[in-house]
Amino acid sequence: MTAHDPWLLTPGPLTTSLTVKQAMLHDWGSRDAGFIAINNRMRKRLVDLIGGGKDFTCVPMQGSGTFAVEAMLGAFVGSKDKLLILINGAYGKRMAKICEYTRRATAILEWAEDQPVDAAKVRDALAADPAITHVAVVQCETTSGILNPIAEVSQVVAAAGRKLLIDAMSAFGALPLDAKSVTFDAVAASSNKCIEGVPGLGVVLCRISALEKTKGNAASLSLDLFEQWQNLEKTSQYRFTPPIHCIVAFDQALTEHEQEGGVAGRGGRYRNNHKILVEGMRALGFETLLPDRLQAPIIVTFHMPADPMFVFEKFYDGLRERGFVIYPGKLTVADSFRIGCIGHLGEAEMRAFLAAAKDVMAQLGVASGRPNKKAAE
Amino acid sequence: MTAHDPWLLTPGPLTTSLTVKQAMLHDWGSRDAGFIAINNRMRKRLVDLIGGGKDFTCVPMQGSGTFAVEAMLGAFVGSKDKLLILINGAYGKRMAKICEYTRRATAILEWAEDQPVDAAKVRDALAADPAITHVAVVQCETTSGILNPIAEVSQVVAAAGRKLLIDAMSAFGALPLDAKSVTFDAVAASSNKCIEGVPGLGVVLCRISALEKTKGNAASLSLDLFEQWQNLEKTSQYRFTPPIHCIVAFDQALTEHEQEGGVAGRGGRYRNNHKILVEGMRALGFETLLPDRLQAPIIVTFHMPADPMFVFEKFYDGLRERGFVIYPGKLTVADSFRIGCIGHLGEAEMRAFLAAAKDVMAQLGVASGRPNKKAAE
Repeated sequence: MTAHDPWLLTPGPLTTSLTVKQAMLHDWGSRDAGFIAINNRMRKRLVDLIGGGKDFTCVPMQGSGTFAVEAMLGAFVGSKDKLLILINGAYGKRMAKICEYTRRATAILEWAEDQPVDAAKVRDALAADPAITHVAVVQCETTSGILNPIAEVSQVVAAAGRKLLIDAMSAFGALPLDAKSVTFDAVAASSNKCIEGVPGLGVVLCRISALEKTKGNAASLSLDLFEQWQNLEKTSQYRFTPPIHCIVAFDQALTEHEQEGGVAGRGGRYRNNHKILVEGMRALGFETLLPDRLQAPIIVTFHMPADPMFVFEKFYDGLRERGFVIYPGKLTVADSFRIGCIGHLGEAEMRAFLAAAKDVMAQLGVASGRPNKKAAE
Repeated sequence: MTAHDPWLLTPGPLTTSLTVKQAMLHDWGSRDAGFIAINNRMRKRLVDLIGGGKDFTCVPMQGSGTFAVEAMLGAFVGSKDKLLILINGAYGKRMAKICEYTRRATAILEWAEDQPVDAAKVRDALAADPAITHVAVVQCETTSGILNPIAEVSQVVAAAGRKLLIDAMSAFGALPLDAKSVTFDAVAASSNKCIEGVPGLGVVLCRISALEKTKGNAASLSLDLFEQWQNLEKTSQYRFTPPIHCIVAFDQALTEHEQEGGVAGRGGRYRNNHKILVEGMRALGFETLLPDRLQAPIIVTFHMPADPMFVFEKFYDGLRERGFVIYPGKLTVADSFRIGCIGHLGEAEMRAFLAAAKDVMAQLGVASGRPNKKAAE
C-alpha cells in the first residue's frame, strides 16, 4: 500500500484535489444565505461554461449523473413526443432503458461500440419519421472512450426542426460544448467528472424557453426537473435536502477549473495525460480499441493482451498495490480494460503509472501487452 | 460571525462531527475493494440497527431521503396494489404526491398537523376497503415534530393482513424501531438525520421476502430499488456512481453512533437537548405547538410570539449572527417556527442557544415569546 490515496485512473469517481475535499469540512444550513449564495454561484458558473447566457439555466439534481439524464429525458420528452436515441455504447442503451421505464415513445439508431454515431444516418431517420420530436446523444461514450460528432449531429437535428438532448457526462468541462455553436435544448453533466468535484450531484443545463414547456411531464416527484427549477427560482432552495458538502466542493472545483484555464486548460491537461498514456502503453505492446482520430482524451479502452501470463485481476491488483486503480472493460464485443485520463492528475502520475504497469508485467512474466490479432481487428 | 460553523438547529442538513467530515478527505474507486468493504459494512450496520437479522437487507439509494421514500413506494406498491397513506403533515402529503406521479392507487386518512395518526381509524379503514394492500406512515412528522404511534399502527396493519411501509427519516437512529416488535416490510431513512452523516444518500431497509416480489414495479430506472439491490448483491457495486465521500462519512457516523451507545445513547442526548430547549424557551414565554406527550425529541414547533416587536426574520438573523441556524415553520394551520434538537450538539450548545435567543429578544425589544391566545389554542 502507498502512503497516499491511490490514483484513480477511472471514469469516476475520480481523484480530486485536497482543496476540493477540504471544502467539505464545514456544515451549512440548506436554507441559510451562505449556502444559497454558493449554490447560485455554482449554477451560474455552469451556465457560463457552455456560454448559455440568459437563454439557459442550470437545474441541479441530487444523485448520480444517470439521475440527471433521467430527469432530463423525463422533462423534455413528453407523453406525446418521440425520442430518437443514438446508441454506440452502454450510456446510449441506458437512455433507451430509462424511456422503457417512463414509457416514452422511442426510435433507436445503433452503431458498433467502436464506431461514432453518423449524422447522415440521423438526418435520414428524421426525414423518414416525422413523429420524432427529440434526439438524444452521448458526447463521449465512456463504454469505449469514443467521441461522438456532437456538432454535426446538432446541425442535422436543428435543420430538421427537432430538439437535441445531450448526455455530456464524462466530457463536460474538458471538451468544448458551446451553446452558441451547438444547438441543443438540454445537456446533462455531473459534479464528478472533468470538473473534478466529488460525486453526488447531477446537473441539467436547460434552454429556458424549452424547459418552460415541460411542466407536468415528469414521471417522478424526486426527478421532476421542472419543479426543481421552479422551486430554485422562487425560493433559491431545493425541494428536498441537497447534498450540501458535495455542492460546496463542486463550487470549489469550479474555481480550480477556472484557475486552470477553463475547458481549454482542463482539456489540455487531459490530452497530455492521454498522449503519455497511449504512447507508453503502446510501447509496452498494448493496443487501443479505437484509432486516435475517434478517441476522446477521457478514457481509453485497451484490448486484453494475448500473453497467457496476463491475468487482468493480477494486473489490476499489482497496479493497486502500487497506488493506481484502473477500470474493467464494458465492451460487449471484445475482451478489454480501460484506463482513464481524467481527475486531479497529470504528467508525473501518468508516467508513474506506466512505470508501475511495466513493473507489474515483469512480475507476472508478461512479455508484451500485444493482443492476439483476431481481437485487435 | 462566529469563528466556528454555525450550529444547525434544523431538521437537516445537520451539524456533523469533524471526524465524520474528515472521513471525506480521501478519494475511493467505487469498484475498489476498500470502498466495497466500507459499503458492505454500512449496509450491515443499518440492518443491525433495526434488529433485522437475516430477514432484512439495506438498499442504499443516491439522493435525498425523499428519493429513498419514492424508491420504497415505487418498489413495494405494485400497479395492482393500493396504498393507504396516513397524513398528519407535509411528509405524509409528499408520499401521496409521489403516488400521483407514479399513478398508484391510494386511499388517504388525514389528521390535523398537531394530532397523531390514530391506529383505530386505520383499523376501520382497512376493514372497510379490502383493496388496500399497503399502509404508509411517517414515524416522526418533521412538519410539527409529532411522534406517530408506529407500534400501534403496525399491530392493526399486521392484524388486517396488510403490509406497512415507514418513512422513519427524521427519527431513524434516535427513536427505537425494532423489526422484532414492529412489523413492517420496509423503512426509509437517510444518511443525514439522527445518524449524523452528511446528506446525499437515502437507504431503504427491506424485508427480503417482500423485496423479492418487487421486480418490475419501479417506474424509474434511477430509483429502481429491486435492481439496485440485485446489483449490489451480485457485484457489491452500485449500478450508477455512488456518492462515495458521503458513504464513507456515513460509515464513520455509524461508528460514532455505536460509540455513543446506539439508539439509546443517541436518543438520550437528543431527549436531553429537547428538555433543555423546551424548558428554556418556555421560560422566555414561548409556547410549543404540541403537548409534551405528543412531541418527539427531534424538532420542536413554537408558536410565533404575539409581541409586535418580534419579527421572525430579525430573530433568525440575530441568532445567525450569534452562531445558530433555526428553521422556518411548515405548518399550514398556524404561524410558527421550528428548532431542531438533533445533530452533533449537546447541553452546552443548547444552553448557549437559549442565551443567544434571550439576547436577541432583548435587542429586538421583545418582552416575551408568548403567542396570542388564539394562535396557541
